[in-house]
Amino acid sequence: MGKPAPASPFAPATLAVLPPLGGVAFATAEAGIRYKGRTDLLVAVMDEGATAAGVLTQSKTCSAPVLWCREALTGGRARILVVNSGNANAFTGMKGRAAVDVTIEHAAKAVGCSPKDVYVASTGVIGEPMDAGKFAHLLGGLAKAAEPDACEAAARAIMTTDTYPKLATRSAQIGGTKVTINGFCKGAGMIAPDMATMLCFIFTDAAIAAPALQALLNQHVATTFNCMTIDGDTSTSDTCLLFATGAAAANGQTLASDAAAPELAGFSVALHDLMRDLAIQVAKDGEGLSKFVTIDVGGAESWAAARKIALSCANSPILKAAIAGEDPNWGRVVMAVGKSGEAADRDKLTIAFGPHTVARNGERAAEYHEQTVAAYMKNSDIDIKIDVGVGTASATVWTCDLTHDYISINADYRS
Amino acid sequence: MGKPAPASPFAPATLAVLPPLGGVAFATAEAGIRYKGRTDLLVAVMDEGATAAGVLTQSKTCSAPVLWCREALTGGRARILVVNSGNANAFTGMKGRAAVDVTIEHAAKAVGCSPKDVYVASTGVIGEPMDAGKFAHLLGGLAKAAEPDACEAAARAIMTTDTYPKLATRSAQIGGTKVTINGFCKGAGMIAPDMATMLCFIFTDAAIAAPALQALLNQHVATTFNCMTIDGDTSTSDTCLLFATGAAAANGQTLASDAAAPELAGFSVALHDLMRDLAIQVAKDGEGLSKFVTIDVGGAESWAAARKIALSCANSPILKAAIAGEDPNWGRVVMAVGKSGEAADRDKLTIAFGPHTVARNGERAAEYHEQTVAAYMKNSDIDIKIDVGVGTASATVWTCDLTHDYISINADYRS
Repeated sequence: MGKPAPASPFAPATLAVLPPLGGVAFATAEAGIRYKGRTDLLVAVMDEGATAAGVLTQSKTCSAPVLWCREALTGGRARILVVNSGNANAFTGMKGRAAVDVTIEHAAKAVGCSPKDVYVASTGVIGEPMDAGKFAHLLGGLAKAAEPDACEAAARAIMTTDTYPKLATRSAQIGGTKVTINGFCKGAGMIAPDMATMLCFIFTDAAIAAPALQALLNQHVATTFNCMTIDGDTSTSDTCLLFATGAAAANGQTLASDAAAPELAGFSVALHDLMRDLAIQVAKDGEGLSKFVTIDVGGAESWAAARKIALSCANSPILKAAIAGEDPNWGRVVMAVGKSGEAADRDKLTIAFGPHTVARNGERAAEYHEQTVAAYMKNSDIDIKIDVGVGTASATVWTCDLTHDYISINADYRS
Repeated sequence: MGKPAPASPFAPATLAVLPPLGGVAFATAEAGIRYKGRTDLLVAVMDEGATAAGVLTQSKTCSAPVLWCREALTGGRARILVVNSGNANAFTGMKGRAAVDVTIEHAAKAVGCSPKDVYVASTGVIGEPMDAGKFAHLLGGLAKAAEPDACEAAARAIMTTDTYPKLATRSAQIGGTKVTINGFCKGAGMIAPDMATMLCFIFTDAAIAAPALQALLNQHVATTFNCMTIDGDTSTSDTCLLFATGAAAANGQTLASDAAAPELAGFSVALHDLMRDLAIQVAKDGEGLSKFVTIDVGGAESWAAARKIALSCANSPILKAAIAGEDPNWGRVVMAVGKSGEAADRDKLTIAFGPHTVARNGERAAEYHEQTVAAYMKNSDIDIKIDVGVGTASATVWTCDLTHDYISINADYRS
């Protein structure tokens, strides 16, 4: 490993404090899978009856844990989640599947559940065989030691090149009963989620049937994690899991089983807000970033077209390097809109950097003043607003700039 | 402008010497469009009867000159080509079209031809209105002063961030008559050709009808310029024009009008070879590069699928940064294959870095020895061979690494 990257300039001054939540408890350990002197193993134990939903990477070379989660999710139930950092257990062939099997066996035994109620996720180096023997024997003890009030430790145990843990909490009412949602995630490079980001785990004490939980997760992944990119590179291990322990039933909440029912509206909004918060936290910890960039595309034919245009900008190395250089190079925005392949009317295109309109109706704006816009580019938060002039749909994408530090971090991550 | 980037380590020790070719002559000038102390204007004058073919960017925000060339190509004839560097005349609205009109008017008058026999191309800054008055008055004099033996000066006049001019020549026989093909091009950043690269001009003295010329150009662009990428960013100005002056008719060549006819087979091979040579020269001058990278994908369902997988690798920032760091991080190859979306059998995937097989049948190769492969990564030319195990089709893509210098060049290109 190279020396650790400096903390992101967007590292929060204080971390969100997640309240304990009925029906789930966490424990972490230093298993020494790859890293020394830090935790790299997380166990989350849920009470019987918890439901599960998940969105997993669409990569054609996805990891062994991703394949297992896809299988486990057909049951829609969960008792235990095991996550390790330091090794992604991806592209490890039959050995990878064997490592997952050993983990599942020990985890199921630790809480006395069926293997299908076990979820696993791994993050770290790709292609290195993972020795589950390094940690499988720890699972029994960890399951016993798990405590409800350990979300921050949990979030820290799953970090790789992240410079801070990403945590968020929200609450909502379901039919008059207060429910809580806690979530944490990791990810700082190889981030262009395609159905989910690297690793994200969300827990609620609400009682929600698995199909409804899955519908809510699908809906909100689209506009949160799937609208965020760091480098356009989609991981082999993207996993976003949402668990509902149902502990709120003890407080009078009736099981919700229709994602579209009015009583879930507040929960749905809170869940979306939490996922958006976490997605932005990931973008704000992009490897080597100096600026956080929000790209709003309007006037598009559809939300999907607007998102594709925004991602074309957000993944353009030449535009991202210009932002790092504090250069208001909006010609590169024009290029990125053009290359997206989506409908855009060149002669109605309007582009603004923050409050400054730089281009209107297909040419430089009359009021454009380079020094003024250059001064805006010195901000840490850069907003780029684009109107492509062909429709009424819009989308927002979050990203960061492309800096020397990104190159340094990725030129010697392994060596 | 920032200070000039150091010359590419792949800059050729000696440039190709292009022989004069019947029916075309070149002249250049220092018009002061943006640069000082260097040529930035090129005029190529062709004899009456020359045919033309072209492939232009598919960008939705393409430049005014690209729109004009599309119109001119419907005629299939050419008398004069005018190219400027320093300003792309892209995203310049009605002013952009007016600048093209002024250029065409002066160029047509200079050689006494119809406006439809005039071709224009511009490269440089996007979004800055271009004042054609800076150079239109020079066209008459340049057309008179044009000489057949001035290809190198022509290639130099169209450079932007290129660190060397890109030239190539080939010859072939058509029905027993020797014909020559000369070509030159430019491009070093914002390069992910989508139907053509930045600017490329090819001239032959062969007599070939425009439709046949166009068919040959389309066919060879696909496997040459469209299989090369520097940063995945598609320019607003990509223009590849091929002109056939027909001067070889004086030596007995009969006009060729069927691209598939046996007598054009040798010409077709020579043209492909010249275009491949130029495409590789562009990749070898990629902004800030330290290594030239060839990616061969085999075992794919189709050529298009193989090309898409190879481009997914060639455009991956995290893989390109690893190559810059001389890290044989083949896990990132696995990631890039997976994210391409094309069919690949994870458990049959084989990857080699040069002569070293690093992964076979979906896991690390038994003979893998990190130090050996790391030593290979110190080479300037890196070959990555991938077999995705689902079919028999293959494709080759050329690219370069992603370095600190790329960031430096693009963080202050304009300022």
